[in-house]
Amino acid sequence: MLPTIAWRGRSLVMIDQRKLPGQETYVRCRTYIQVAQAIEKMVVRGAPAIGIAAAYGLVLGMMAARAETGRSLEHDFEKVYRRLERTRPTARNLFWALERMKAVYERTRGDGLRAIRAALLEEAKAIENEDAETNRDIGRHGQALLRDGMTVLTHCNAGALATAAYGTALGIIRAAAAEGKRIRVFADETRPFLQGARLTVWELDRDGIQVVLITDGMAGWFMRRGEIQAVVVGADRIARNGDTANKIGTYSVAVLARENGIPFYVAAPESTIDRTLPDGGGIPIEERNPDEVRQVGGRLLTLPCAEVRNPAFDVTPARYITAIVTERGVRRPPYEKSLKDPGV
Amino acid sequence: MLPTIAWRGRSLVMIDQRKLPGQETYVRCRTYIQVAQAIEKMVVRGAPAIGIAAAYGLVLGMMAARAETGRSLEHDFEKVYRRLERTRPTARNLFWALERMKAVYERTRGDGLRAIRAALLEEAKAIENEDAETNRDIGRHGQALLRDGMTVLTHCNAGALATAAYGTALGIIRAAAAEGKRIRVFADETRPFLQGARLTVWELDRDGIQVVLITDGMAGWFMRRGEIQAVVVGADRIARNGDTANKIGTYSVAVLARENGIPFYVAAPESTIDRTLPDGGGIPIEERNPDEVRQVGGRLLTLPCAEVRNPAFDVTPARYITAIVTERGVRRPPYEKSLKDPGV
Repeated sequence: MLPTIAWRGRSLVMIDQRKLPGQETYVRCRTYIQVAQAIEKMVVRGAPAIGIAAAYGLVLGMMAARAETGRSLEHDFEKVYRRLERTRPTARNLFWALERMKAVYERTRGDGLRAIRAALLEEAKAIENEDAETNRDIGRHGQALLRDGMTVLTHCNAGALATAAYGTALGIIRAAAAEGKRIRVFADETRPFLQGARLTVWELDRDGIQVVLITDGMAGWFMRRGEIQAVVVGADRIARNGDTANKIGTYSVAVLARENGIPFYVAAPESTIDRTLPDGGGIPIEERNPDEVRQVGGRLLTLPCAEVRNPAFDVTPARYITAIVTERGVRRPPYEKSLKDPGV
Repeated sequence: MLPTIAWRGRSLVMIDQRKLPGQETYVRCRTYIQVAQAIEKMVVRGAPAIGIAAAYGLVLGMMAARAETGRSLEHDFEKVYRRLERTRPTARNLFWALERMKAVYERTRGDGLRAIRAALLEEAKAIENEDAETNRDIGRHGQALLRDGMTVLTHCNAGALATAAYGTALGIIRAAAAEGKRIRVFADETRPFLQGARLTVWELDRDGIQVVLITDGMAGWFMRRGEIQAVVVGADRIARNGDTANKIGTYSVAVLARENGIPFYVAAPESTIDRTLPDGGGIPIEERNPDEVRQVGGRLLTLPCAEVRNPAFDVTPARYITAIVTERGVRRPPYEKSLKDPGV
């Protein structure tokens, strides 16, 4: 199996996540515009994966740049940067990755295009490789929260497909399974884009981890019936106080977990934390195409002109979050303090 | 437009609710077995509508009976009754309607087959007509709970398609609109069967009531954002203490409404109340075919053999319910007391 994202010299190859699990097809992007469109159309999705794709997109953009130096080069870089930056607004990791790339560009801008390109490619590869390591660390820290025999609910897909490899929320589950703990996963199907039904079920099935698919409206009922012992989800952006943006429906899961006395864990790399935001009120929430709600796989579910709302994310207030697991450890409330610590 | 269910002499015609809103087709049942299958396959659904369909199914069954009197007639009646009774386990109204029919049969069993058939048909028509009146009364009482300018969330479809006409939850919304109140409705799509996306949107659109379709995971977020001022849902079975079984996902909506200080109303005829049950613990919850979760309209969403759970209902504890509206009035907690009152 190819990883989620693979750099192939002069192109970026990504598994088409819109087609899984029915078809395992790959999309090859040769230009930064193709990468931007792949992010917008959710060929690739998941906060860390979007960041990695955008970093390579910037490399492709600068490979096509003609100007060697000066204002024209500046203009080329800015054009590519702005295009990639405006693909999706919520995931912090997209901006974090682009900012890392920009810092490299600014350090090397006087060195000529060849040196700039080499440095940018090296940085994109570093972002990718660090993400894979980061996920292993998240898994190692987080698996201690799960006990043998637990049933764990997850929402959306925070797995290998959302990252360079291994996954954040699913990384914790994988690490627990690797420790010999028998973990069963309930996967919310996660309408409208069905990342749970399509991606989480596929990933866990391949790993031999038991996964049970449910619709989003069932999660609360299974919590109430005592069939779920923990919730683990990923994150798209975390404010300084711990407020967490993640896939739409996460807030509801968190409230239901609290109501039923079930721990609710967020798993994400440090790059998801937005230290410029005091709380979740400032997180921009993407509203996507209404047809994602009206249709499934091109099949119309409702009236063709039905009025629709389609926020792609929601914000879970920190008070519902039992712990946030990053590569540095398990952070507990109050997050204003614990998210500041360099290590736990 | 034909009503949801129409008696046509020697057959029962029902709009095929599996096909709406894409196709407006009708299913004609000439035998009680066809009626039983139509209930099982959800050609007709909604607690009151199921009761009405089953009552007419019993009429069709006794129309085909050959025995005039005695043990053989008894056997015919029992066979038809048992078949209809085992179609779906949760909705109280199914059993309530069948019990009414049985009482008529027992009163007329000595009068010969012609008289029995006439009495049964009369009773089925009475059940249907009373339901239509009942819904108007529920609407009249319940509309007082809604104020001009409110946005009201509903889950599943408790409309004309779930009843003889008008609807219970949607009856309240219709009655409020008829009073000149501007009511906007948020409709949960209600996976897996999509009664919200398919039926509630279609019904309200035809009535010119503004309806906004959302996925089930979005409801909590819109509550938190202050965009929803009340929740109104139907019911499949209500225990003596007010615990209410309704479409899967209702419990989650109720918890989220409580968490956000939003009133949560249940609308149902008195026939939904199961006075044999002290609380919701004894309500049987139907678990349906896993393919309802794996597929939408025959299109596979996940792995073909994905393990699935598919409870069709959940039970909302009475403590989350602000009021239960029946044809007799608006019942408030404690429901042990208020549900006993003959009128409010």
